[in-house]
Amino acid sequence: MHIAITGGGGFLGQRVARRLAAEGHLGGRPVSGLTLFDIDRPPVPEAPFPVASIAGDVAELPEAAIPPGTDVVLHLAAVVSAAAEADYELGRRVNLRGTDAVVDACRRLARPPRVVFTSSVASFSASRSEIIGAATRQVPANSYGAQKAAAELILADATRRGFLDAVTLRLPTVCIRPGRPNKAASSFVSSILREPLNGEAAELPVADNFCLWIASPAQATDWLLHACSMDSSAMGLDRSVNPPGLTVTVGEMLAALEAAKPGAATLVRRVAAPQIEAIVATWPARFDPARALSLGFAPHGTLDALVGEFIAGTRAVP
Amino acid sequence: MHIAITGGGGFLGQRVARRLAAEGHLGGRPVSGLTLFDIDRPPVPEAPFPVASIAGDVAELPEAAIPPGTDVVLHLAAVVSAAAEADYELGRRVNLRGTDAVVDACRRLARPPRVVFTSSVASFSASRSEIIGAATRQVPANSYGAQKAAAELILADATRRGFLDAVTLRLPTVCIRPGRPNKAASSFVSSILREPLNGEAAELPVADNFCLWIASPAQATDWLLHACSMDSSAMGLDRSVNPPGLTVTVGEMLAALEAAKPGAATLVRRVAAPQIEAIVATWPARFDPARALSLGFAPHGTLDALVGEFIAGTRAVP
Repeated sequence: MHIAITGGGGFLGQRVARRLAAEGHLGGRPVSGLTLFDIDRPPVPEAPFPVASIAGDVAELPEAAIPPGTDVVLHLAAVVSAAAEADYELGRRVNLRGTDAVVDACRRLARPPRVVFTSSVASFSASRSEIIGAATRQVPANSYGAQKAAAELILADATRRGFLDAVTLRLPTVCIRPGRPNKAASSFVSSILREPLNGEAAELPVADNFCLWIASPAQATDWLLHACSMDSSAMGLDRSVNPPGLTVTVGEMLAALEAAKPGAATLVRRVAAPQIEAIVATWPARFDPARALSLGFAPHGTLDALVGEFIAGTRAVP
Repeated sequence: MHIAITGGGGFLGQRVARRLAAEGHLGGRPVSGLTLFDIDRPPVPEAPFPVASIAGDVAELPEAAIPPGTDVVLHLAAVVSAAAEADYELGRRVNLRGTDAVVDACRRLARPPRVVFTSSVASFSASRSEIIGAATRQVPANSYGAQKAAAELILADATRRGFLDAVTLRLPTVCIRPGRPNKAASSFVSSILREPLNGEAAELPVADNFCLWIASPAQATDWLLHACSMDSSAMGLDRSVNPPGLTVTVGEMLAALEAAKPGAATLVRRVAAPQIEAIVATWPARFDPARALSLGFAPHGTLDALVGEFIAGTRAVP
């Protein structure tokens, strides 16, 4: 089977590419080829199958990005929360016109492919005490979330029409991301663990009792791979899933940090950042995982395991 | 105040234009001018203020369609249900790119205008026994509904950003529409009353106990005018309203027909039309009007009054 990844140079795109390269198969079928697409040519992992790497604008998607014979598209290309808030046109172009371009590319294929799309917790703005279920309406409080929710509707309709077979994962905040603090409003969520584990200071713009819905990079990658090959027939018209993420408070995260590396939590400085707080305060933190579990998405591991996964990964990649 | 109407040549656009022309004011303020825009140049009503009539493609909206100084935009231009189902590109272009073009036109104005947008009962696909509330999620079962729900998200986000001030009305099936049966899947809803009242036969593709959510043209026009001038500050992030429509069965409609014109119901022929039934069977018929009433939308009159309104209108316009 041939797999194409938009946003293939991004954090999750590269993780999925490396997993496919290492395993050589997906859902029991051998992978025959992989196409990675991003704004810059994505790095190519060593793989037992050909890997193409293509650069371009997702809103003007070149045909080679989703070539004839593609069986699975992971549509991960996106402009993230703070960037979409700062640049309306850019967010609309990538997050909406990019999704239209993926729909049109799929219509040119002989067989409708599975399309795995990443939506986000940021598409909700329920009160933070509410438990989000499969039927909860998305009332986004940021442009990124609004564009993701609109793209979900477009992909669900394209599925109903038989153009493609979409499975949308509304990802929790992925934590611990590698690298440095970035423009995402959720950047601090990884930073308050990552920087202290690396012996550096981090800034915390919310209170210790602030509640978050998170998933480790490994767990998010597992869910994406499951979404690539699962039986989608039970989904009906509703092609979106809230996966079984981890609900934690900042205080619990700092306790897990301290348990993994005594003294590290003292590197976390409380700061006031009302703009960040205004965005993340609208993201719900409690979800009912029943539908995701019934569709075969694995429950998340513990917070200690999430911290341990990062420490092991840091050691493995010098 | 200056008012602009996209879809100004359509049924509701023309009704709103004639009401504004007849009344000369809106929400207590005098109307200084009206711009009507549609794919063909809309008819111009006689009015105590200048009326411009412009033809064009809503996806490539000319600046003159929403000129500098516009205070209120009624964005009614749309490709309807059966047509959007038959032509995916056309539906996407008008229903989505047209909405983006309206957003961009509003951003060029010095002051963010009120934008009144018409979404639809077709954006829902809840089970027919369910009561739709303000928090019910839209899971559309047709491209028209999906495009309308996505456009609602885009307009709500544009409101939050301060580009405009949107009020979306999710209109019930408007009944009794004048004219002839058309491509809308809901065409029969008007036809089973209109044709027999005019002494002609009509086709009924659903059972007598089939339940519908409807609104008369006069009531829909009243709601649109209320949406133009109401205080929207109580709406918060949720810019969409399910107005207080009328829930009726086909049997009740035929009884009202028979009461207004004895013998007319015998002109209604039962036919099998599985494609029509498949679309309309996904539209819910029961709604909780609490939020709409709290926002000042008037409750709907009786079914007998709806039939009487049509008969009076037919007499008034020879």
